[in-house]
Amino acid sequence: MPYIPLEEHLPGITGLLEYRKDTAEPIRELTQFLLRGPNTLTEGERELIATIVSHRNLCHFCATAHTAAADILLGESNTTTRIKQDITTAPVSAKMKALLTIASMVQESGKSVTDDAVLAAKVAGASDTEIHDTVLIAALFCLYNRYVDGLATVTPQDPNFYQSLGQRLKDNGYNRLPQGYDHLKKQHEQQ
Amino acid sequence: MPYIPLEEHLPGITGLLEYRKDTAEPIRELTQFLLRGPNTLTEGERELIATIVSHRNLCHFCATAHTAAADILLGESNTTTRIKQDITTAPVSAKMKALLTIASMVQESGKSVTDDAVLAAKVAGASDTEIHDTVLIAALFCLYNRYVDGLATVTPQDPNFYQSLGQRLKDNGYNRLPQGYDHLKKQHEQQ
Repeated sequence: MPYIPLEEHLPGITGLLEYRKDTAEPIRELTQFLLRGPNTLTEGERELIATIVSHRNLCHFCATAHTAAADILLGESNTTTRIKQDITTAPVSAKMKALLTIASMVQESGKSVTDDAVLAAKVAGASDTEIHDTVLIAALFCLYNRYVDGLATVTPQDPNFYQSLGQRLKDNGYNRLPQGYDHLKKQHEQQ
Repeated sequence: MPYIPLEEHLPGITGLLEYRKDTAEPIRELTQFLLRGPNTLTEGERELIATIVSHRNLCHFCATAHTAAADILLGESNTTTRIKQDITTAPVSAKMKALLTIASMVQESGKSVTDDAVLAAKVAGASDTEIHDTVLIAALFCLYNRYVDGLATVTPQDPNFYQSLGQRLKDNGYNRLPQGYDHLKKQHEQQ
């Protein structure tokens, strides 16, 4: 049960974003720009960064939601499965291996990022902006994961919930839905 | 030396916020609302939350800057010194002890926050919004600390730098200065 009164039909982050709209707006805006804005990293690649950080923070809600979004964007679920097992052998580019490694270091601590890891990313062709955005996306999900679990929000067990949410994150991104998630709520209730 | 090209006169977070203004704007807005917006927690109390999290994340730039801001707002430096040593014996209210304890748990992980810690905060009179804001401020500084250290930004050693920055955070908050920190730059160069 959440530590603060959240709407029952809005689990995980969704209830928190409705609870305090003044803080939700800049959080949504930052996420929309970083994960859906113009970028040389694809939306799928950026969702992989969100996925690996949430997975390593053991945030089940965020990890499952962003795995679903990444799977839908990539058209397969092998990559998300494999990066969670071992980044170095996962079926992603050398650049993405290096960036996911940096993201995993950021998950531990900013101080865990090594010169060698950044050099490896640069050698693999990562731009300064890509390195910046990788660190900031990883740091943002360290915020999200703590926000979601630190207030003990509800984590649905039904895989269909995350499939719907992942589809919404692909179709609509991170902007607020005008109808306050009613569409998602209905989808969820029908399942 | 930072991993990406940042302006030399802008150490720590300040260079990052100039590097990518599209992400800086919502980060500033979120911080301004949480730390300076209308709240039943004082600005000094909210800076204590920023301080304890940054201190525990070993982020020297953020910890020193927010210690300076808190000291200026509180008019003394005993409280910041003492919360870093032991929250339970620090000269703050029972409510603030409970909220700083929750913030310290969030610094570790969202999953580290316990029912007992939240109950203690509620018994000490903390409102739901105060608990929400404590968790989100703590999570936000987990973002900041990783952003600042994950990109190896410069950490000034001169205490006067942090005194000037703390004063600016008291006087101007977290909004962007129209002149791009020129005032702060001049202050720093004159010292």
